[in-house]
Amino acid sequence: MKLSEVVDKLSKFRVEVPSWGFSRSGTRFHSFHIPGEARNLEERIEDAGTVAKLTGGVSSVAIHIPWDKTDDYIALRHLAGRNGVTIGAVNPNLFQEEDYIFGSLTNPDASVREKAVKHCLECIKIMQETDSKALSLWLPDGSNYPGQVNMTQAFDRLLKSLEIVYGEMDSDMELLIEYKFFEPAFYHTVLSDWGTALLVAERLGERAKILVDLGHHAQGTNIEYVVGIASMLGRLGGFHFNSRKYADDDLTVGSINPYELFLIFVELNSFFDLSGRQLALVIDQSHNVKSKIGAMIQSVVMLQKIYARSLLVDREALEHARSKNDVIASEEILLEAFETDVRPIMKEMRENRGLPDNPLNHFFSSSLEKEITDAR
Amino acid sequence: MKLSEVVDKLSKFRVEVPSWGFSRSGTRFHSFHIPGEARNLEERIEDAGTVAKLTGGVSSVAIHIPWDKTDDYIALRHLAGRNGVTIGAVNPNLFQEEDYIFGSLTNPDASVREKAVKHCLECIKIMQETDSKALSLWLPDGSNYPGQVNMTQAFDRLLKSLEIVYGEMDSDMELLIEYKFFEPAFYHTVLSDWGTALLVAERLGERAKILVDLGHHAQGTNIEYVVGIASMLGRLGGFHFNSRKYADDDLTVGSINPYELFLIFVELNSFFDLSGRQLALVIDQSHNVKSKIGAMIQSVVMLQKIYARSLLVDREALEHARSKNDVIASEEILLEAFETDVRPIMKEMRENRGLPDNPLNHFFSSSLEKEITDAR
Amino acid sequence: MKLSEVVDKLSKFRVEVPSWGFSRSGTRFHSFHIPGEARNLEERIEDAGTVAKLTGGVSSVAIHIPWDKTDDYIALRHLAGRNGVTIGAVNPNLFQEEDYIFGSLTNPDASVREKAVKHCLECIKIMQETDSKALSLWLPDGSNYPGQVNMTQAFDRLLKSLEIVYGEMDSDMELLIEYKFFEPAFYHTVLSDWGTALLVAERLGERAKILVDLGHHAQGTNIEYVVGIASMLGRLGGFHFNSRKYADDDLTVGSINPYELFLIFVELNSFFDLSGRQLALVIDQSHNVKSKIGAMIQSVVMLQKIYARSLLVDREALEHARSKNDVIASEEILLEAFETDVRPIMKEMRENRGLPDNPLNHFFSSSLEKEITDAR
Amino acid sequence: MKLSEVVDKLSKFRVEVPSWGFSRSGTRFHSFHIPGEARNLEERIEDAGTVAKLTGGVSSVAIHIPWDKTDDYIALRHLAGRNGVTIGAVNPNLFQEEDYIFGSLTNPDASVREKAVKHCLECIKIMQETDSKALSLWLPDGSNYPGQVNMTQAFDRLLKSLEIVYGEMDSDMELLIEYKFFEPAFYHTVLSDWGTALLVAERLGERAKILVDLGHHAQGTNIEYVVGIASMLGRLGGFHFNSRKYADDDLTVGSINPYELFLIFVELNSFFDLSGRQLALVIDQSHNVKSKIGAMIQSVVMLQKIYARSLLVDREALEHARSKNDVIASEEILLEAFETDVRPIMKEMRENRGLPDNPLNHFFSSSLEKEITDAR
Repeated sequence: MKLSEVVDKLSKFRVEVPSWGFSRSGTRFHSFHIPGEARNLEERIEDAGTVAKLTGGVSSVAIHIPWDKTDDYIALRHLAGRNGVTIGAVNPNLFQEEDYIFGSLTNPDASVREKAVKHCLECIKIMQETDSKALSLWLPDGSNYPGQVNMTQAFDRLLKSLEIVYGEMDSDMELLIEYKFFEPAFYHTVLSDWGTALLVAERLGERAKILVDLGHHAQGTNIEYVVGIASMLGRLGGFHFNSRKYADDDLTVGSINPYELFLIFVELNSFFDLSGRQLALVIDQSHNVKSKIGAMIQSVVMLQKIYARSLLVDREALEHARSKNDVIASEEILLEAFETDVRPIMKEMRENRGLPDNPLNHFFSSSLEKEITDAR
Repeated sequence: MKLSEVVDKLSKFRVEVPSWGFSRSGTRFHSFHIPGEARNLEERIEDAGTVAKLTGGVSSVAIHIPWDKTDDYIALRHLAGRNGVTIGAVNPNLFQEEDYIFGSLTNPDASVREKAVKHCLECIKIMQETDSKALSLWLPDGSNYPGQVNMTQAFDRLLKSLEIVYGEMDSDMELLIEYKFFEPAFYHTVLSDWGTALLVAERLGERAKILVDLGHHAQGTNIEYVVGIASMLGRLGGFHFNSRKYADDDLTVGSINPYELFLIFVELNSFFDLSGRQLALVIDQSHNVKSKIGAMIQSVVMLQKIYARSLLVDREALEHARSKNDVIASEEILLEAFETDVRPIMKEMRENRGLPDNPLNHFFSSSLEKEITDAR
Repeated sequence: MKLSEVVDKLSKFRVEVPSWGFSRSGTRFHSFHIPGEARNLEERIEDAGTVAKLTGGVSSVAIHIPWDKTDDYIALRHLAGRNGVTIGAVNPNLFQEEDYIFGSLTNPDASVREKAVKHCLECIKIMQETDSKALSLWLPDGSNYPGQVNMTQAFDRLLKSLEIVYGEMDSDMELLIEYKFFEPAFYHTVLSDWGTALLVAERLGERAKILVDLGHHAQGTNIEYVVGIASMLGRLGGFHFNSRKYADDDLTVGSINPYELFLIFVELNSFFDLSGRQLALVIDQSHNVKSKIGAMIQSVVMLQKIYARSLLVDREALEHARSKNDVIASEEILLEAFETDVRPIMKEMRENRGLPDNPLNHFFSSSLEKEITDAR
Repeated sequence: MKLSEVVDKLSKFRVEVPSWGFSRSGTRFHSFHIPGEARNLEERIEDAGTVAKLTGGVSSVAIHIPWDKTDDYIALRHLAGRNGVTIGAVNPNLFQEEDYIFGSLTNPDASVREKAVKHCLECIKIMQETDSKALSLWLPDGSNYPGQVNMTQAFDRLLKSLEIVYGEMDSDMELLIEYKFFEPAFYHTVLSDWGTALLVAERLGERAKILVDLGHHAQGTNIEYVVGIASMLGRLGGFHFNSRKYADDDLTVGSINPYELFLIFVELNSFFDLSGRQLALVIDQSHNVKSKIGAMIQSVVMLQKIYARSLLVDREALEHARSKNDVIASEEILLEAFETDVRPIMKEMRENRGLPDNPLNHFFSSSLEKEITDAR
C-alpha cells in the first residue's frame, strides 16, 4: 500500500470510546480516585469529545445502562453531537441487581429472566432514541461451584431469553454477543468462549454477532485466529480493546503485547476495510492508575499506530511467501511492517487534519487538563 | 440409583485401550525403555487382551496406522477376537512423513493434501476389514510463526480435504474430530478448540463428531461444560482419556484431578447411558515411567471407579437443589457420591463376573508380569 | 497409622476462620447480599463460634484491621473466649486508603510508606491486646504498566519498611508473608511468588515466614512442592485455604481439586504434626453465593476429611516404594488413602466429642440458621 | 544515550549461538529434515562462524556433550577460532541415558547419581581444554505422578551432587543453573523456578548463578522482574533466549512478544553493560520449520535490534517520571524507545564494521545458502 493511501485510510479510521472509561473504576479491593475523573454523564460525553478532538480517531461513545441513564435520550444524542461524537453501542447491565445473584437471562427463576429481558428491551428503546445500532451484551451468568447449575439447561434458557430480545430489535440493529473465560463466575460461564457465542448467534439470526474482548480468553489463546474464523463466517461484530497479562486485567490498549494487537489487525484487514467502520471497534479498559482522559488518548493513538503498521504489510508478497512455505520470509514481511516507525505517517495525518501533533502532550501541557481537574 | 443397578451398569461399562499405549513412547528428549513393553502389533493386541481379562472393562483396542500396519487385517480382527477384544477406532498418522512438515490435510501444496487424504481412505479400508466403526482424526496441522500460514484458508483447505474423506465412509461409520490447543504447532493449530472442531463436523454431516482429549485444552478450561454442550448438540463422539497438570502431559487417567474426571462423567450421564457403549471412550496416554500393562490396568480401574461414583449421584435431589439455587446442597450431593468408597461395589462387580479382586496386584504378583517381561 | 490414632489426631486438629468470611464480599462487579451475613464485629465472632461449636475444628478467628477495629480489644478477646475461640492472625489493610494508589510499604513517597508502617505497628499493638501471635501481611503493591515502577528499588523499599515492623514485634510473634501472582496489580507484584517472600523472610529473621494462599499461584504450579521446600527450610508459616479454577477465585476449600489439597497435607505431614497447631492453618475464602456460616462449616469439614485421609497414607510403604522407583505402587498408596471413605472416622470423632453428626445439616435443619437470618 | 554511543555499544554486543541449533531437532512427534542442516560437529561450528560473520553479533558457540563429543578438544577450540568464535558454555546431557529414567543428579540410586556427577566432571575437563568458562546445567529431573518421588529429599540429593561438581570447577568458571516449570517431568520438576535455582546457587557459592530460559516459566510470569531480582542479588548468570506462546515452544527469539524481550533488556541495562559480555547471552531455540542458519541470523539480528532499542530509553527521564508516579509518562518513555526504527542504527553499525547490510538477504541471495545446502 502506498504511504498516501495509508495516510488516507488512517484519516478515516475511527474507534468508539466507553463512557465508563472516564469515571472511577477499580478492582474488588478498591476504586481509587483519579483527579479529573468524570462525575456524571455530561462530563463523560465531554471527555469523549475531548479525546475525539485531540486524536481525530473517535467516532462514538458507548453507553452503559443504568450508569448512563437519563430522562432525555434525545438530549443525550444532541450532547454527543455537540462533542463531535455519536452514541455507539448500548450496554445493558445484568450484574448489579440483587436479583441477579444466580444469573440474569439464564436464571432458573422465570421472573428474574423476565426482568433481565425487560432491561434489554429498555436498552433497545434507548438505542432507537439515541440512534445507536449495536446492543452490546456481556453476560455475567455462570456458576461458582460444581453442581450449582445445570449448565446445558442454563444455555438453553439463555437462547430463549435472547430470542425475545433479538425479536424486538430493529432490522438495522446488531446484537453483539460477548463471551468471557471466567469472572465474575468462577466455575463456569454460560458464554465461555467464541464457540458458545457463535452457537447463540447462529440460532438467533444474521444480525447477531460475536464481540471479542481481548482480555476474555484463556492464557495462550491465539486471538487472531479466533478473529479470522469469526470474520470468515461473517459473524465478527466487534471488539472490546484492552490489554492483559494475567486475566481480564483491563489495562490500556497495547500495553502488554503490541505485536499481538498488530497481528489481529493484519487478520482483520483480510476481511474488512477498517477505515469504513464495518466493525464496532470499541475500547473497553479500566485504567485505575492513569489519568482517565490521558489513558484514553494513549489508547486511541496506540490503535491508530497499530492500524497504520498493519496497513504497511505487503500482502501480495506475504501470500507469495506463504505459497512457497517460506516461513522466514513470511515472518519478516510482518516484522518489516511492525518495526516501521509510523510516527511520520501519524504526523502527516494530523497535519492534514489540523490535529495537534502530539495529542497526549497537548492534553497535559495545555491548560486543558488543569481546567478539567480543577473544575471537578 | 440402587446399588444393584450401579453394579449392573458397571458390569457393562467398557472402554477402549490404545495399541500404542503398550509400546515405547516418550518425550522429545528421550523415550525410555520399559521392561515388558510390547515390540510389535501382536504383542500389543495380547496386552490389550490381558488388561481386558483382568479388569473386565475393555471392549476394544484402537489402532494407529502405520504403526499397526499389517498385511492381513482379517487376521488382526481374529487375533483381537481371540484376546477378547474388537478393533476399535482407526487412527491415521498425519505427522510423521517428511512431506507433512508444512501440514497434511491443510498443506498449501495440493499433492501433499492428496497424499494425506489417500492415507485416510486407506484407513477407511482398514476399518472395513477390521469391522471398525470410528475414524479418529487428530490433525497436527498449524503453524509455528506469525505470518507462516493464512489461517482461514488453511481451515478452508481442511474442510475440502475432509469432505472427500467423509464421502468415502460407510453409513455406519463415524468420523471423530479431535482438536488441540497447541503442539506440535506452536503458534496456531487449525483445529484448536471444540468450536473449530464443531464447525468442521457441522459442515460434513451428522456422522462427524467431536472427540475430546482431556489434555488438549487451555489451562482452566471447564471441560465438563464443553462435554455438556457438545452432547446437547448431538455432536459428542468420544474421548481420549488421560491427565495433565501443565500441557498435553498424557499422564495416566485420573492421576492429577480425579474430581474433574468425576464431573465429566456426571455431565455425560445426563445425555448417555455409558453402560451401553454410545460413545467412543478411549484411553490415550503416554505413560513413560510406568509398567505399560500396569498403567493401563490402573487407568481402566480408575475409569470404572469414577463411573461408579458418577452413578451414585442422586440426580433428582440434585435438580431439586438446583431449582432452589441451593448451592451448598447441590455441591454436597456431588461430594456425597464422589467421596463414597466404591471399592465394595467394584468387589461385587468383580465377584459376579469372576474377575480378580485386585487386577493390579494380580498382574504384578502372579507370574503374569514376569512371564511377559522375561519373554520380551 | 492406626484408626484410633487418626481419630485422636483428628480430634485435636484445628483451623482458623476469618472474621471477614462471615460478612458481605464480592467481585469488582457486585457484592451480593447473603441472608444471615454478619453485620458487625460481634456477629462475626459469634459466627466463628457457631462454626467452632458445630464442627469442633476451629481454634481461632483471624481479624482484619480496620474492618474489625474496636475501641476495646480486651473485650474482643473476651468475646472470642465466650464463643470458644481465640483471636488469631491480625491482618493489616494496605489497599483501601487513597494514599495507597501507588503502593503502601513500597510507595516511592516516604510519607506514605511511613503511614503503612504505622498501620502495621498499630496491628502489633492489637496483637498484644488480643494475645494474637501472627501478623499476617498481604501486600497489594506492584504496578499496572511496564515502566511504572522501578521493580528492584520497590523490593528494596519493602525490605526497609518491614525491617521497622519486624523490629517492633515481640519475640513470640511471627510475621507471615503472603505472596500473590497478580491482582490488584496487573503488570507486576512486589511479592509475586514464594521466592520473593522467602528473600524477605530471610533478610528479616527467623520469625518471618511464608504464608501460602492456594489461589495465589500461576496455573499449573505444583503447590505441594512449594510447601515442601518452604517446610524443609523451616520457613513455612501458614496457609490461606481456598480454591480456584482460574485465578484468585477464593472459592470454598476443596471445591475444585480435593486431591491437590490432599497432596498438600501429605507433604505437610512429613514436617509437621498438624494436630499440634504448629502452623497457621487459616481459611480465607470469599463465598459470594453460599450461606456464609454454611460455607464455613463446609470448609472446616472438608479440611478435617482431607486431613484424616492424609493421615491414612502408609508412609513406610510409600518410602519403600519410592526407594525402588515403583511409580505405580507409590501412587496407589496415596490413592488408597484418598479414596477411603473417612465418614466413619469423622463420625467417631464427633461422637467422642459430643459434636453433631452432620454439622451442615444440623445448622440448616435446626432453628439455628433461621434464628440468625431472621435476627439480621 | 547519544546515537553514536548506541552504535558503539551495539558494535560490541555479542551473543552465543548453540551448536545444536544447526542440527535436526523436533517435537516428540517428529523431527523434520531441513535442507542444509548440519550433520556433524564441524559443520555446526562452521555454521556458527557463518552467522558470526554475517551478523557481527556472535562471540561463541555453546556445545552439548555428548552431541559435540570429539577426540580432540584442542582441535575443536582451534576450529572455532578459525570460524571467528570461541567455545562458550558446555552443556552436560542428563536426559538421554536409560539410567536416567528416574532422575540423574537426584536419582534415588547412588550409582546413577555418581554417573551423572562423573559426566559433569567430564564436562569440566572439556571446559578446561576448550577454554570455556561456563558449565550450563539443565536438569530434567522431577516426577510424573504424585507420590513417585520424595520431593524435598530429591532436592537434597541434588545439592549433594552439585557440591561435588562445583568443588571441581576452576576458580574462573561459573555454574549456570537453569530451572524449568515442566517437561520432561510432568508432575514436578526439582528445579522448577528461579526460587529453587537460587537456593541451590546460594548453597554452592558465589560462582553458581541462575540461568533464565525464556520458555521455562508459567504463563503470565513477569520474567523481567525475575531478571531484575536475580541481577540485584548478583545471581543472574545468563540466558537461554527463545520465544513461546504456550509452553517451552522454543521458537525463534522475539517471534511472539518482542516488547517483552525489550522490557527484559531494559531491566538488564540497569545492572549490566551488555556490550561488555558480563552475562552468558545464549540463544537456545529449536526452529523446526525454518532454515537453520537463516533462523539463527534472524535471532541474532532480533537481539541486536532489541538491544539497540533498549539503549534508547531515556533512563533519567524514566526515573524522574517514576518518582512522580507519572504512569503514562513512564510508559511513553519506554514506548518511545521501543517504537523507534533502529534500522538506521543497525545500518551504521554494519557499515562501520564492513558487515552485509541485510545479513538474512545476504545469506539467502548470495550463493552461500545454496552451496551449504548442496554440499550437505
